[in-house]
Amino acid sequence: MPKLNGVLETALYVDDKPRSIRFFKEVMGLEIVRDEERLTAFDAGGASILLIFARGESTHGEDTPTGHIPGHDGEGPLHMAFKIAEADYEPWRTHLRAAGVVELSEVTWPAGGRSYYFKDPDGHVLEIATPGLWPNYK
Amino acid sequence: MPKLNGVLETALYVDDKPRSIRFFKEVMGLEIVRDEERLTAFDAGGASILLIFARGESTHGEDTPTGHIPGHDGEGPLHMAFKIAEADYEPWRTHLRAAGVVELSEVTWPAGGRSYYFKDPDGHVLEIATPGLWPNYK
Repeated sequence: MPKLNGVLETALYVDDKPRSIRFFKEVMGLEIVRDEERLTAFDAGGASILLIFARGESTHGEDTPTGHIPGHDGEGPLHMAFKIAEADYEPWRTHLRAAGVVELSEVTWPAGGRSYYFKDPDGHVLEIATPGLWPNYK
Repeated sequence: MPKLNGVLETALYVDDKPRSIRFFKEVMGLEIVRDEERLTAFDAGGASILLIFARGESTHGEDTPTGHIPGHDGEGPLHMAFKIAEADYEPWRTHLRAAGVVELSEVTWPAGGRSYYFKDPDGHVLEIATPGLWPNYK
């Protein structure tokens, strides 16, 4: 049986794409790797991608010369988490608070590691987490 | 500015969690690393996690002895993608077709790499993609 090598893309659906681009670029420090009307793709580190879709703009998919990209869409508030180094936990918290990001909570995990939860501009529940909480993330 | 080291968790919201568990375990070959009433977590490879939430069961979050896990929920069809090796593309396609998984499309990307799109039991648009399509995924 073939195997999966990890999550490549996770997607959020947003009401105001320019606002989300500012947030993920300026507050989260992510670099844009593709920017189209219906989607913006960010390098989220570790060979993974965060996709931001303008809500309702990808419902019907897209025909390209080399294949059809199927349609999808979503309502939230969805959840996703980023990996961060333990040494970056306090700097991230300080940075997000200084940027006025809506803080939700902090959790210290029984197995190790900790998480800081906050909202993106659409109210999606974002998380930054240090190694330890999952058996495959030590 | 602190940095992000990749996507740790991506989440799908499902109508029938036992059905989704069978799909992600038996068809996608993922191992369960946590299984609770409201969520099941799968090792998705590469130190990343796929979270399956029973729709409506995580709306109010959860108080734990070491912190509050905030609530979230979602409607789809959402999108996410897994990394696969180029050598595993044909075996994956054969495997998914043999399992009767609903195929959506295939795309060969201008920058390199190819994607196979299919549906999970809730109609979420899943993708398996080989290296090349993103500048940080070569």
